[in-house]
Amino acid sequence: MRKLDITEIKRLTPEDFKEAEKNPLIVVLDNIRSHHNTGAVFRTCDAFACEAVYLCGITGTPPHRDIHKTALGATETVHWEYFENTMEAVKILKSKNYKLIALEIAENSTHIDEYLPEKNEKTALILGNEVNGIDQKILDICDICIEIPQYGTKHSLNVSVSGGIAIWTLTKKMRYN
Amino acid sequence: MRKLDITEIKRLTPEDFKEAEKNPLIVVLDNIRSHHNTGAVFRTCDAFACEAVYLCGITGTPPHRDIHKTALGATETVHWEYFENTMEAVKILKSKNYKLIALEIAENSTHIDEYLPEKNEKTALILGNEVNGIDQKILDICDICIEIPQYGTKHSLNVSVSGGIAIWTLTKKMRYN
Repeated sequence: MRKLDITEIKRLTPEDFKEAEKNPLIVVLDNIRSHHNTGAVFRTCDAFACEAVYLCGITGTPPHRDIHKTALGATETVHWEYFENTMEAVKILKSKNYKLIALEIAENSTHIDEYLPEKNEKTALILGNEVNGIDQKILDICDICIEIPQYGTKHSLNVSVSGGIAIWTLTKKMRYN
Repeated sequence: MRKLDITEIKRLTPEDFKEAEKNPLIVVLDNIRSHHNTGAVFRTCDAFACEAVYLCGITGTPPHRDIHKTALGATETVHWEYFENTMEAVKILKSKNYKLIALEIAENSTHIDEYLPEKNEKTALILGNEVNGIDQKILDICDICIEIPQYGTKHSLNVSVSGGIAIWTLTKKMRYN
């Protein structure tokens, strides 16, 4: 099993990526404190060809050295917008008929594997603050809450990890359902 | 959809976690540079009840302030061992009949969703250095190489994100296959 070097992997160029068909998934970061997490989400959104990232509230915006450390250039390829508050972003998405999906630990949440988006359904995935999660007011207007079942001692996963699992799971289903 | 507070989530106590049945998955970190990544992997291994984390080479070891920032206590719950070099760790695992799975971009790799472990099969998942990936010598003695298909411009995902997707995918299959 020979490891492939970077010239053999044949990823898209930034120019080709801009033109390429995207998964209709917009990832909304609701007050993410850590630039490391924001950068990692950018990189995940590049890998799974997401439509955009919406950076809200205290979430940092590029260019920023600490975001760059984990994004490694994905802030140049993934479309992003900044909103002063998450509610504004979410209301715009609702008015454009995006299905609003919260990734959160909540009453009556749906197991992530049981949620089945329509093929190419316009979807917004909301990821919450590292300590407080998604603001309850935002959660109240979401269409569905999905949850990753966990079996350990900690309250939750790191948000770039749980976001990664959710983005991978949703885009895969969007592509093939 | 009411958000659950930490007292309602009913995670295991550290004492109960130690006694709880684990997934027979040992995660091997091959020279991970970032303490943030190491901490996030600990937290993922807590969430998905992994048997252990093997920290190899330059990978940091607890207690360390920067590992704690993302592990948030999971270094106290997840069993870990340190090895000066990854080859030593991997040879021990092979001698104990662990199936060695590399997460890497390589010739003849298997799509992560197509790999089907036996129920409760003893498995070691090797995650490689942020820049160089898994050392080719380690890859050469692995039983299989799994890959997460990617559609963007970047070479790879952040290792705590790709590791999260792989640990989630493998432990789910181990539990239900």
